[in-house]
Amino acid sequence: MTDIPEPRFSLDEVRREGLLQPPATARTPHDGTGRVDLAFTVADAPGKEPTQRGVRVPPGVTVFDAASWNGIAIDSTCGGHGTCRKCKVRVEGGRVPLTQHDVRTFSEKELADGWRLACLVRATHDLHVDVPPLTTRPKAATVGVGRQVILRPAVQKRYVELAEPTLSDQRTDLERLLAAIDDLELTCDLAVLRRLPKVMREADFKVTAVVVDEELVEVEAGDTSAVRHAIAFDLGTTTVVATLLDLDTGTPLAVASMLNRQQPFGGDVITRISATMMDPDALGRLQEAAAATLRELADQVCAEAEVDPAHVYEVALAGNATMTALALGIDPEPLGVAPFVMTTASPPTALASDLGLALHPRARATIFPSLGAYVGGDIVAGMLATGMDRDKRVRLFVDVGTNCEIVLSDGDTLLATAAPAGPAFEGGAIRCGMRAADGAIETVRLEPDLLAEHAPVTLGVIGDVEPRGLCGSGLVDAVAELVKVGLVDASGRYVPDADAPGIAPALADRLTKVGDERVFVLHRPDADADPAECVYLSQRDIRELQFAKAAISTGWTLLMEQLDLRAEDVQQVLLAGSFGSYLSPASAIRIGLVPTLPVLRIVSAGNVAGEGAKMALLSMREREGARALLEEVTYVELSDRPDFNDRFVEQLAF
Amino acid sequence: MTDIPEPRFSLDEVRREGLLQPPATARTPHDGTGRVDLAFTVADAPGKEPTQRGVRVPPGVTVFDAASWNGIAIDSTCGGHGTCRKCKVRVEGGRVPLTQHDVRTFSEKELADGWRLACLVRATHDLHVDVPPLTTRPKAATVGVGRQVILRPAVQKRYVELAEPTLSDQRTDLERLLAAIDDLELTCDLAVLRRLPKVMREADFKVTAVVVDEELVEVEAGDTSAVRHAIAFDLGTTTVVATLLDLDTGTPLAVASMLNRQQPFGGDVITRISATMMDPDALGRLQEAAAATLRELADQVCAEAEVDPAHVYEVALAGNATMTALALGIDPEPLGVAPFVMTTASPPTALASDLGLALHPRARATIFPSLGAYVGGDIVAGMLATGMDRDKRVRLFVDVGTNCEIVLSDGDTLLATAAPAGPAFEGGAIRCGMRAADGAIETVRLEPDLLAEHAPVTLGVIGDVEPRGLCGSGLVDAVAELVKVGLVDASGRYVPDADAPGIAPALADRLTKVGDERVFVLHRPDADADPAECVYLSQRDIRELQFAKAAISTGWTLLMEQLDLRAEDVQQVLLAGSFGSYLSPASAIRIGLVPTLPVLRIVSAGNVAGEGAKMALLSMREREGARALLEEVTYVELSDRPDFNDRFVEQLAF
Repeated sequence: MTDIPEPRFSLDEVRREGLLQPPATARTPHDGTGRVDLAFTVADAPGKEPTQRGVRVPPGVTVFDAASWNGIAIDSTCGGHGTCRKCKVRVEGGRVPLTQHDVRTFSEKELADGWRLACLVRATHDLHVDVPPLTTRPKAATVGVGRQVILRPAVQKRYVELAEPTLSDQRTDLERLLAAIDDLELTCDLAVLRRLPKVMREADFKVTAVVVDEELVEVEAGDTSAVRHAIAFDLGTTTVVATLLDLDTGTPLAVASMLNRQQPFGGDVITRISATMMDPDALGRLQEAAAATLRELADQVCAEAEVDPAHVYEVALAGNATMTALALGIDPEPLGVAPFVMTTASPPTALASDLGLALHPRARATIFPSLGAYVGGDIVAGMLATGMDRDKRVRLFVDVGTNCEIVLSDGDTLLATAAPAGPAFEGGAIRCGMRAADGAIETVRLEPDLLAEHAPVTLGVIGDVEPRGLCGSGLVDAVAELVKVGLVDASGRYVPDADAPGIAPALADRLTKVGDERVFVLHRPDADADPAECVYLSQRDIRELQFAKAAISTGWTLLMEQLDLRAEDVQQVLLAGSFGSYLSPASAIRIGLVPTLPVLRIVSAGNVAGEGAKMALLSMREREGARALLEEVTYVELSDRPDFNDRFVEQLAF
Repeated sequence: MTDIPEPRFSLDEVRREGLLQPPATARTPHDGTGRVDLAFTVADAPGKEPTQRGVRVPPGVTVFDAASWNGIAIDSTCGGHGTCRKCKVRVEGGRVPLTQHDVRTFSEKELADGWRLACLVRATHDLHVDVPPLTTRPKAATVGVGRQVILRPAVQKRYVELAEPTLSDQRTDLERLLAAIDDLELTCDLAVLRRLPKVMREADFKVTAVVVDEELVEVEAGDTSAVRHAIAFDLGTTTVVATLLDLDTGTPLAVASMLNRQQPFGGDVITRISATMMDPDALGRLQEAAAATLRELADQVCAEAEVDPAHVYEVALAGNATMTALALGIDPEPLGVAPFVMTTASPPTALASDLGLALHPRARATIFPSLGAYVGGDIVAGMLATGMDRDKRVRLFVDVGTNCEIVLSDGDTLLATAAPAGPAFEGGAIRCGMRAADGAIETVRLEPDLLAEHAPVTLGVIGDVEPRGLCGSGLVDAVAELVKVGLVDASGRYVPDADAPGIAPALADRLTKVGDERVFVLHRPDADADPAECVYLSQRDIRELQFAKAAISTGWTLLMEQLDLRAEDVQQVLLAGSFGSYLSPASAIRIGLVPTLPVLRIVSAGNVAGEGAKMALLSMREREGARALLEEVTYVELSDRPDFNDRFVEQLAF
């Protein structure tokens, strides 16, 4: 009995873990790494053929979570706390521990046959699970990258009609209410208690209880059970996006986005962190700037959907570690200097008002945890939205930005790291660089042959206006095309002027100089314009991109070596972030930003952070999945890797 | 395995209950009522003879709690959460369930020998427990009515010197700190996280963690571990008392008391409740009046003891249900009208700032739970201080005031009720009545015999000044003496003037009239003063007292019948409340306020509510004991007893 595996769970989970009797005669316990296999047989409807589903999950996950994470519905109203006793399944495979809740739920025969409450059975070894037909058909929504999510929001509403108290029934108001929703075990906030007696009596004891997770946050007169909303925030360094959700249907009602009001303090996280180091008031002002941004967006989406902000009971926030710290008013300084330490990986559940939001006064804020100072909650949300931890394929997740986050999964092990890509992708240090806005060149096609029917230079410009500059994807395209036509050699240098006409006659004249720096002119306002007035790509710009892509490819190269994988093993590359969705897979491959693979294996995943935030609001299970990622993903720090620089140099070549 | 007793514990306890494996082969499980017997063998010191102690506790209590409640010390640093693994004991008697924590703590041999963690073993049947010698000698303090309390405050401080982070040790600040105090499992508030990075670095990672219960509420630079304070409040309707405690030594540093600033709204709870019913703003003003009272007292005690209010990390509040509701801003209306319903019996743990206090910003407020609308937290605190639930004797607890609370214990069962004593004891409706203040007659001795060496009337006056009126105890004394000398008959009527000289020659002349009401003059300002200017006792005053004592004695009579007890069975009567401590046992017996017993069995317990509040601050165990009382005590509602009025009439006679 002494070889019980040490638990790998949070305090709460350890408490629930306690519900497990030591699996005395269990098969050799799982060593706590890798995955376990669960074979589900789901009785969809009486009569219908049951469906078979195999899933792999980290050991220790409950059968209920494992099912929900994979879109398999099991009855439940309590959200997996062993209180509603609805999530009955039959489990086979080795000895399955018993809990007191099982003992109170099933007959001895049923227990002997393997019936258990799915929310209390931990998958410590491979199991076969029979799921009976659902008594209630759960709602589901499709979010993230084709993820089917069963709706089990933390926000629940229960309409109850209570018996009025009498001298022979002097139960307190709270007891009376909680007894009517006894499938939940709730705490109650003082603010609710203050109003409770009046609300109950003015409503003739017909009230709607508003629950967030395990807390009773409001009691409303009459039946308001259909009205429950939440807002998902993707708090980017540059852009902030808010999505208002109807939690009853899982549908987004309104979306709004705006630039982060912290911009005046600097374009990237480092400049904002240094701002707090130079000026003691800056932290407070940055916090307020974040709050103002979130407030404005919340007002916009509520106004657009005509939703009363007081009916928004929860928000979710996904941002990188610095944005998260600033929004919460946590001093970010240690994030900015080696050894790059976070104050905490998992911020405590806060109130929306802690973020400066004016929604329901007790509205909760669930903040995505961070894996490291430079692999933040936005990436964790992205992994959730892309199901990085629930996929047997070898997948590479790359979020390209000033800081580039990379996650690699071989189906069992998950590695994550951050590569300092530098400002190239934000169009920062690029001479004619600009953000992906109207006038930005986002695609470039070069035709070296004078006699081709194509124009020598074909530009895709955002907003179809006169080109004003190059955004990140245009930059990648331009360099990729120049490498393809041979005007830029593998070392990243422009070929000598003398050689240009021989290599690309139709383009040679565009290779010229601005000051004493060699440039390639992409767009001339008019035929005889001075190169300095044109949109061009300079030798130094190419170096910038070169360094960025070298950093990134060094990142995934090192991760792939750690998992003993070769480029061709990668079955899917997910390009994330607003930049990733602009980037053309072909050019990304051509400059070596991603491994050399069939283009179709490279998927632009879009704003996955926002999708992950939505999922956390729609499903407690998904939220716990995000927390579980902290345990599952190994964070690899590159900056102290002795071989980093050699690899970096190797990767410089195009 | 299906006959597990349903748990009778709070959510948290149910969670911990989960740690128990179903006692498959256990002896017939306890039916969940009455008590179980625990026989402790305590190895005081190596070499010394072990002491034997038998204790009786409600089933389900952990062995650790049972020991602490009875002053038996067992090693522990985590406060009984199964995390520090120090509370090792050897348990015998039936099969004792195992927990995973036991499995991780003991060898198989030790487990077979019955070694367990005392904080996880629930006493579901009689047990014998061997307690090894203490590795650390715990501090203890004597509080309440001779209660020895082992110091285990919810407020703990831990000084730690942490290793500075490096690239190879990027643990977050919070992880780093918590790892150094891993015998506790803590949550951390956002407010602490905001300061954490700066505090840790400015203090070179040498900091003191301040913990309240399971929450990290502060991190202080350097070693402040010796400085921790708390304030116990006895929030009376009339008087409020504050005691500042040094939690390191358990000693009170300062005590202050003042009149409740809610007085202007009315002298008793009913008038204050009606105030809120008549004026919508009154609740807010009453809440602020309570806050102002508590603030002023807190300032006083901190100033007197020269303690920085920021070093007060917790307060405890004991008050009746109405005072508690008003202090928390909870609408008290349902308490004032039948069927007399509370909003909640156990207010959630709040912040001291919720009570309007300006101490440490995260200082907690632990509020005593109430048994009923008229048996409030002050009585629960009183039961704690007097150990009503830990005593095998038959005991009667009477808190005499406008509302009189009565608790009866036969050593197993605990009953509580409230009797509407009316204002007599507050000197309210009494013609010459006054509060127990300077000038109040508190004792009366009458000498009927003309030739006795004693004066006919001997008065004990508070402050040794000219008598101004009668306080409650003086009233009881006066009536008792008049009954004794025969000037008042058993029905409570003054004897006819004609009979007086024959009955009590030395006093007959004092039996006269004010208006058309018969009175007995207790004090004359001067020999020929008009009776109306004297301090006297009127016929109606006697009726007031008669009704009050009838209500009270009806209360305990009904409780005694319910437990099938006779007066002589009562081994101790505890007279509580500021009034109880003035009341002379002899007179209380003589008028039938308490059962007819040897005077020595009647103990004046003093301000037990305040003592209970102190105990809750000094010991988590005692605090849990108070919560447990909610389960153990049966509240008896008198107002719907059909036989109440008959009994009441029976009890009217003196």
